Amino acid sequence: MNPPVVGIVGGGQLARMLAEAASPLGVSIRILAGEADEGASEVVVDVVHGAPDDADALIEFARTVDVVTFDHENVNLDALARIEAEGIAAVRPAVSTLRLADKAHQRRTFAAAGLPVPAFEIIDVADDSSRDAAVDSALAFASTHGSAEGTVIAKSSRGGYDGRGVWKLRRDEISEFIRGYRGAPLVFEPLLPLDMEVAVLVARNPSGDVAVWPVVETVQVDGMCDEVLMPASIDDRLVSDALRIGRSIAESVGSVGVFAVELFVSNGELLVNEIAPRVHNSGHVTIEGCFTSQFEQHLRAVLDWPLGPTGAVAPSAVMHNVTGGGDDPRCNQPAMYAEVPQAHLHLYGKTPRPARKLGHVTVVGSDMVSCRTQASRAVTLIEGTVNQDPVRGWDAK
Amino acid sequence: MNPPVVGIVGGGQLARMLAEAASPLGVSIRILAGEADEGASEVVVDVVHGAPDDADALIEFARTVDVVTFDHENVNLDALARIEAEGIAAVRPAVSTLRLADKAHQRRTFAAAGLPVPAFEIIDVADDSSRDAAVDSALAFASTHGSAEGTVIAKSSRGGYDGRGVWKLRRDEISEFIRGYRGAPLVFEPLLPLDMEVAVLVARNPSGDVAVWPVVETVQVDGMCDEVLMPASIDDRLVSDALRIGRSIAESVGSVGVFAVELFVSNGELLVNEIAPRVHNSGHVTIEGCFTSQFEQHLRAVLDWPLGPTGAVAPSAVMHNVTGGGDDPRCNQPAMYAEVPQAHLHLYGKTPRPARKLGHVTVVGSDMVSCRTQASRAVTLIEGTVNQDPVRGWDAK
Repeated sequence: MNPPVVGIVGGGQLARMLAEAASPLGVSIRILAGEADEGASEVVVDVVHGAPDDADALIEFARTVDVVTFDHENVNLDALARIEAEGIAAVRPAVSTLRLADKAHQRRTFAAAGLPVPAFEIIDVADDSSRDAAVDSALAFASTHGSAEGTVIAKSSRGGYDGRGVWKLRRDEISEFIRGYRGAPLVFEPLLPLDMEVAVLVARNPSGDVAVWPVVETVQVDGMCDEVLMPASIDDRLVSDALRIGRSIAESVGSVGVFAVELFVSNGELLVNEIAPRVHNSGHVTIEGCFTSQFEQHLRAVLDWPLGPTGAVAPSAVMHNVTGGGDDPRCNQPAMYAEVPQAHLHLYGKTPRPARKLGHVTVVGSDMVSCRTQASRAVTLIEGTVNQDPVRGWDAK
Repeated sequence: MNPPVVGIVGGGQLARMLAEAASPLGVSIRILAGEADEGASEVVVDVVHGAPDDADALIEFARTVDVVTFDHENVNLDALARIEAEGIAAVRPAVSTLRLADKAHQRRTFAAAGLPVPAFEIIDVADDSSRDAAVDSALAFASTHGSAEGTVIAKSSRGGYDGRGVWKLRRDEISEFIRGYRGAPLVFEPLLPLDMEVAVLVARNPSGDVAVWPVVETVQVDGMCDEVLMPASIDDRLVSDALRIGRSIAESVGSVGVFAVELFVSNGELLVNEIAPRVHNSGHVTIEGCFTSQFEQHLRAVLDWPLGPTGAVAPSAVMHNVTGGGDDPRCNQPAMYAEVPQAHLHLYGKTPRPARKLGHVTVVGSDMVSCRTQASRAVTLIEGTVNQDPVRGWDAK
């Protein structure tokens, strides 16, 4: 029996951190990296270059590994379906789970399953003949669900991330926006009053074992996750509701691997915002904050190994993203450690560009306020933005 | 300013774990791997092949990195001295520190510094003309310091590890042993009555910052470290003595990087057994057991970055080595996790051979006895030795 090879489609930071977790476990990793992928190739020996939307490249890659899993969801699903149907390799999560990355599909699925979701309308503008009807539907939605000013949120159902593919539209902007929009169907939803955003991370293996990490608060800045606080400061009822929703989605979907569920807390109630069928930014805090990290757990899950315990190792843990716009963070470690020696640094080896996620810092401790202050300060120092702007994310709450 | 490149001479498990620690820190690693080296090449992209005793290979390698550090001490010291003198790269630890890997040199140095060391005699058998005198000296040492049966310990001053290069000799075996011995000078010492063996791990950077981890107990089986228990169950006076000795050696030597000091506890007193000027088996427990692992700390130290906090994250932590002789451990993870899901596994990617260190398992928790039981059980399962022999190391105390 040969040790298993896990193939990861995509070579970004999630692949990099999966590889970092794989090395001690004795799990061999092979990566299919697209042209623009940065992060994993720097530290992974076995990298195949090919586009994740190229069916031939994907099938060829699958033939050389035992399990195919993913750094991102922008993959040729038809080719994956063939890999699955012909048993070329195990596809984990399954194609049916990956299809849920489509925000329109997931919103309909969860609503049908009776899960709490925001009011929504799917607006399809596939061809010009449907634009008038699309505008009418969107305006009707804004009338019913828009804010006092008629403002709504529109999200592209596919391809968006880190705030891209999300638009806040006033009533008087809707018509022009839809007439100029080219792309996947849009999900319209209200501009909700948010108490907080939280996330639940769930792992499930093919044998059906499920593990759920503590609920975290996610602090967004400009639509992009900036900080993650573990545990979320919500009451016990919301915690158990959130865990139940996370577990219930993973079980009903039959997902395999790690699966993130992002939730709104609005007027004291939970609403499912969206899911991501993979390891997720909201779970980076588990690397130092929990007994088993999301990256180790994902590998164990896709290999159908027994899952690890997900409890927190300390009362508080804070993850703070490092983004581009300042210095190359690979030169600022001494300055960061001089002030925050306890910061756990994770850099992704990516070329700095403004607003690009280049890494993250985690601080674990007994007190949330001081963990948060320390993580924030560490990020300011590693980004080299000390004299440029106030500590990001701190004023956003 | 370019991110620094750390060159590691040797490509075994210590290089592998340094590379695992380097990736999140954004530190580039280049390895000079000898022919027989296994472990690091599997997970490190930038590997140069060359013998560590080949001066040209070493100097060529040094030209391509910022700092040279080490997986082992069997390196051409004259070439390193040239690299140091000519400033080709920073050599950390320095050649003067690496020379202390010679057990005769370190024993003399520590005795001269007034540190507590066992009684010893250096017996040099460099040429045949000195053998008669060597036998006389060894017999005289055995008469004075040997056990009731005249038994003593002889250690090769260079090249020994994991119980190799160490001999227990009865008085009547000494003469024949010395007459047949070819090799580095021998260190003779008494067969001490041992209460326990402990180790102190110290890190020092060129700026002079020193950090010391909690004192650990090392449980040896057949001369090879089998388990490491953190913290060691010794009284506060011994703890503070051990930490003081560790710190004092690092400071007087001016060592850079992580530095292990192995100590005997004999009749309630500490004696310095030996030091290793590098990351060390007794420090693997720091990966999950402490705020900063020895591997991250070593990188920070050799780069002259501020050091991290070394406190324990939990009341107890146990590391248990995984050795060859059973199955390939890379196929037994499911069996191990099924019974001990909380085990932290570290495999080194080495070809299994009897008594070869193939990995280790760490269990962190609130109770030493249960951590130890769990780690032991996990090792039995990952080694696939369930039905072969009793749990190793367990009866050795």
